[in-house]
Amino acid sequence: MLRPASVAVIGASDDATRIGGRPIAYMLQQGFSGAIWPVNPKRDTVQGLKAYASPAALPGAPDVAIIAVPGDSAREAIDALGEKGCRAAIVFTAGFAEVGEEGVAAQAVLVQTAARHGMRLIGPNCLGLFNQAVGFYPMFSTSFEQGWPHPGVIGIASQSGAYGTHMFALARARGLGTPVCITTGNEADVSLGEVIGWMAQAPEVQVICAYAEGIRESTRFIAALTLARQNRKPIVLMKVGRSALGTAAAQSHTASIAGDDAVTQAVLDEFGVVRARTTEEMLDIAYAATKRIYPAGNTLGVLTVSGGAGVLISDAAEQIGFPMPEMPPEAQVRLKSLVSFCAPRNPVDCTAQAVNDMQLVGKFATETAVAGGYSSILSFFTQVGGSTTMADKLRAELNAVRARHPDRLWALSIIASPERVAGYEEDGFLVFEDPTRAVVALHAMGRYGDSFARAAEAEGEIIVRHVTLPDTTPDEAEAKRILADAGIRAVPEAACANVEAALAAATRIGYPVVAKILSPDIVHKSEIGGVLLDIADDAALRDAFATLMQRGAERAPGARLDGVLIARQIKGATEIAFGILQDPVFGPIAMVGLGGVFIEVLKDVAFRRCPFDAEEATRMIRSLRGFPLLDGARGRPKGDVKALASALANLSVFAAGAGPRLRGVDVNPVLVLPDGQGVYAADAVIEVERA
Amino acid sequence: MLRPASVAVIGASDDATRIGGRPIAYMLQQGFSGAIWPVNPKRDTVQGLKAYASPAALPGAPDVAIIAVPGDSAREAIDALGEKGCRAAIVFTAGFAEVGEEGVAAQAVLVQTAARHGMRLIGPNCLGLFNQAVGFYPMFSTSFEQGWPHPGVIGIASQSGAYGTHMFALARARGLGTPVCITTGNEADVSLGEVIGWMAQAPEVQVICAYAEGIRESTRFIAALTLARQNRKPIVLMKVGRSALGTAAAQSHTASIAGDDAVTQAVLDEFGVVRARTTEEMLDIAYAATKRIYPAGNTLGVLTVSGGAGVLISDAAEQIGFPMPEMPPEAQVRLKSLVSFCAPRNPVDCTAQAVNDMQLVGKFATETAVAGGYSSILSFFTQVGGSTTMADKLRAELNAVRARHPDRLWALSIIASPERVAGYEEDGFLVFEDPTRAVVALHAMGRYGDSFARAAEAEGEIIVRHVTLPDTTPDEAEAKRILADAGIRAVPEAACANVEAALAAATRIGYPVVAKILSPDIVHKSEIGGVLLDIADDAALRDAFATLMQRGAERAPGARLDGVLIARQIKGATEIAFGILQDPVFGPIAMVGLGGVFIEVLKDVAFRRCPFDAEEATRMIRSLRGFPLLDGARGRPKGDVKALASALANLSVFAAGAGPRLRGVDVNPVLVLPDGQGVYAADAVIEVERA
Repeated sequence: MLRPASVAVIGASDDATRIGGRPIAYMLQQGFSGAIWPVNPKRDTVQGLKAYASPAALPGAPDVAIIAVPGDSAREAIDALGEKGCRAAIVFTAGFAEVGEEGVAAQAVLVQTAARHGMRLIGPNCLGLFNQAVGFYPMFSTSFEQGWPHPGVIGIASQSGAYGTHMFALARARGLGTPVCITTGNEADVSLGEVIGWMAQAPEVQVICAYAEGIRESTRFIAALTLARQNRKPIVLMKVGRSALGTAAAQSHTASIAGDDAVTQAVLDEFGVVRARTTEEMLDIAYAATKRIYPAGNTLGVLTVSGGAGVLISDAAEQIGFPMPEMPPEAQVRLKSLVSFCAPRNPVDCTAQAVNDMQLVGKFATETAVAGGYSSILSFFTQVGGSTTMADKLRAELNAVRARHPDRLWALSIIASPERVAGYEEDGFLVFEDPTRAVVALHAMGRYGDSFARAAEAEGEIIVRHVTLPDTTPDEAEAKRILADAGIRAVPEAACANVEAALAAATRIGYPVVAKILSPDIVHKSEIGGVLLDIADDAALRDAFATLMQRGAERAPGARLDGVLIARQIKGATEIAFGILQDPVFGPIAMVGLGGVFIEVLKDVAFRRCPFDAEEATRMIRSLRGFPLLDGARGRPKGDVKALASALANLSVFAAGAGPRLRGVDVNPVLVLPDGQGVYAADAVIEVERA
Repeated sequence: MLRPASVAVIGASDDATRIGGRPIAYMLQQGFSGAIWPVNPKRDTVQGLKAYASPAALPGAPDVAIIAVPGDSAREAIDALGEKGCRAAIVFTAGFAEVGEEGVAAQAVLVQTAARHGMRLIGPNCLGLFNQAVGFYPMFSTSFEQGWPHPGVIGIASQSGAYGTHMFALARARGLGTPVCITTGNEADVSLGEVIGWMAQAPEVQVICAYAEGIRESTRFIAALTLARQNRKPIVLMKVGRSALGTAAAQSHTASIAGDDAVTQAVLDEFGVVRARTTEEMLDIAYAATKRIYPAGNTLGVLTVSGGAGVLISDAAEQIGFPMPEMPPEAQVRLKSLVSFCAPRNPVDCTAQAVNDMQLVGKFATETAVAGGYSSILSFFTQVGGSTTMADKLRAELNAVRARHPDRLWALSIIASPERVAGYEEDGFLVFEDPTRAVVALHAMGRYGDSFARAAEAEGEIIVRHVTLPDTTPDEAEAKRILADAGIRAVPEAACANVEAALAAATRIGYPVVAKILSPDIVHKSEIGGVLLDIADDAALRDAFATLMQRGAERAPGARLDGVLIARQIKGATEIAFGILQDPVFGPIAMVGLGGVFIEVLKDVAFRRCPFDAEEATRMIRSLRGFPLLDGARGRPKGDVKALASALANLSVFAAGAGPRLRGVDVNPVLVLPDGQGVYAADAVIEVERA
């Protein structure tokens, strides 16, 4: 579809400014390598090309067709093209799913029509695409009025046509090469994931910029991310908007905390996709990525002529977690001997004195690169880099060092004319006016590097076994038994049908105990006062049993009451919550957070697609802002994070094996005991769709 | 010092590229309006000007002198200039406080020498300044090689010369006018605050860009911020670096949480100074401020041709708290009748259809401005704004609307040639390529507007009365008595010298009670087990008394033991902490935060310079991330925020009246009862410097 030998244009116009005319004009101007077959029943020629009256009249089956006719004519054209043997179409036509229910129905018919012929569709309601290498411009954007794409390695994949070409135009204005741009519109057939997947294997694309309003399917999207990572092609994604989760998931407590945006973020993190906060940031990162240097364990060395700029850069690096290790002590001594007032640690401030003697700049740069050994170097030379009296010498000094270390990412923060900037870029430097933007872009290269390295490690396969779920949502005791089988231990407890059984159980488990009402019909027990704590002896337990039965009858009329659950009361543990939610796109997603205010007030939770291993679970736990509470903050003992990670990973494997009937799991609280003493689920809810 | 009639250049050089030559060359090139008197004992003329052998040989007392001679010659020159009657000098000379102790001493001598003659100094170790209006260029920067400053209204005040001229050069490259730039170097005399204060009253400056590594004095700085706010001149500040607080403050718990950066931030917030995160952001904000429209209660209306960009802008606005109210329903109906598929709420998406019929753009823009009534409007037209076929029509349509509403801030996010951008700017539009940057800059205008409006309100004066502190750090009971006098109630309690008194007090107060060891020598009681809770009856209290006396003797040997403090034990309250720390620059600073993990793990605290009123205290409390806990989260009753704010404001007035001998106050915990029931200090430490 991207390198066709022939393209038919349905609704071809002789007017080069009309939707059906622009693609033909662009392909003629850019020397499209294939045949262009305009279809227009009213004309013999279109823009100087022979026109055909209908798809049936075409000289053969076109590799691709552009559909630029309105409404129902689009469906008719697709049918006729299918008959002719065409297997791919790019549909500009609007008025489908984007305009409401009627449009949704029309779109379904369109898709069925194409499917009957085995035909793939891009769109409808899309702006089209371009592949500069072969002059293929099936796109009706006005962008090209201001210039054609530069050659290069950045592919643009966008759900929005306006935004896709906005990215292209900004890239062009910066001199960045974007040989391919594909906009997917309504995604009735070809999805953003599929486009990214194509770019992940296409030799013309080495860096992928993507724009998404929502991810509509996961299979091809995940496959694309996997392939891109395998092929060491970085993806920068702009994902806008947040929408509420579907009502299906809202019943579970875990689900109500999430948001599909948080789930998407978790998936992006999993595959090392960097999410840009602004379009500018996206292009900064793509620009840096064109160097194709992705260091794992990225570090930043800073060489500056301004102490203030050095501090500013350090602030920015610290804020995003970009390590700036100190220079080795012996190198600091050497630098001090060169310029006694220099700051030699990192940032390395060579001061104005070094600028007056450019050879010193070379020496400082060498020390930074060799002794410092940083994978990324940012040099702040502001106007010196553009000075008519100094820039040439500066460039020569810096480039001599850079050329000996081609494996480093080396960015300059300078103010200079476009010509001078181009000179530095030819040498192999990245050039950013603003040092903060350079820090963000360089840091992203390390995030890719780490992700590529993780993917390259021979990860142990996670074995997922099929889990047989009960026919309906189980009660707490049954839920805990299921989780125990999955490797998540519960607090020692016993389900007791009557008060005598409860007394026996409490004696066995040991006082103090907790008593909870036992009913398959009551999901959130504490809301009806169905949980009683601090039961110290037999007398108190008798009272508690009676109280719970009475509350159950009064506050949940009609609910089946199976007795009470007696459990050991554990004190002094750190309370965690974890659980599973079913995302409509990405399937089961695990969540973990610290109990209480951390989840409910601060939304301090981590998400991850299931299944995953204990190492990944550890990363999730450590990413929590409240993690210090598990790590010995406030004089507490360290929590058993290892056992917690293991339990969380087990939960993820359970969820992956349980299939779509598992609607959600809430394990809250999970009691984390001190290191080596394990974790216990103190309450558990498993919601299951009725079989 | 900024508009002199004569300037002497000590160390004047005939070489226009040397430090002593550049200022002369620049002033000659830019037609300095005053007399230039080069001082050089070896030459008759310097750059074509008559030279003088020494300061004594000058034809009169220069209004200002530039000192461009090294080391001790600088001091000698200043002495000679003082004798001659000169009263101001700009000192380029380096090698003073920035190079260590010897330099500090030399700098002190320099300052004394100048002071003897009543002479003011800028620097030493500064790059100088410029005032373009009179062609005054006492600056040795190489920046001017790439061009002169544009006329305009932005003043640059910078502690760093390199960074100050970096800002100037970036501004020039953007076409922003910076008529004045002043760099302060070591600030031996003239400080950044004084420079900002000058700009706050100078007619040539309407917008102030400042760069600081640290604020060294508060009196002139605060006066400058006050004056700038009064004169409705916005300040954008780049403040880099974070350093640990002085050891003097480290003893107090409150102080150890702070950092001088957080204190500076609190001062900036107080005066509505916007802190830029990057240089780019600083210039974006300064650019928007040149319109001199500062709406209080700023709202954002978005007019877009791309739904995706609309969502992206909404995300950005939400993230920084920039309100985007919906269009009125009747206006939405009208928009729908113009373009049935448009999105009329806000963002208002006029879709590509409106672009095809430019009159529709005018109608949509009118509705957004008139019916929407937004004080700020951002229009995303991407490449349409630069399109050769469409831009002229677009500009005419938009400008017709804008011209009828000159009170609005109106930004365009477009991609266009510099010439077209200049055209839109002539019309009065702000132009940003990146919409996110536009959102941040427009939002800042509202922050200024709100701050100017607050300053204009007749604020009730806060009456600060002198507080007499005890001679030494008081014990807890005395501390609470002092705070009670200041309007901060403690939990009902009694200091008891012996066990009989304790028993009587407990009976009076009512069990359960808390018992705490009472000693002026033990600051943090809980660390030695000096606090016992849940004392239920007389027997338990007898035990508790004995235990505390024993622990005091064993664990704090030598400490005076004055008995125990018996207090009512309050349960179910929300725990807050507040306190005072003495900042070495800004004096007493109040802090408030939620107890427990919020302060210790999350550093979720708010700071404010003392004194302030209850309204400001309420703002501080509401700014806490954990505020929902006081506002009914998790099914709790709402806390008595009014009483809390009143207590916090009272504390701030107390601290302001107590003077510098007050080293710190910790009130932790403060128990906040449900609304209407008040707050109680449950523990209090007041640290006082020995009289």
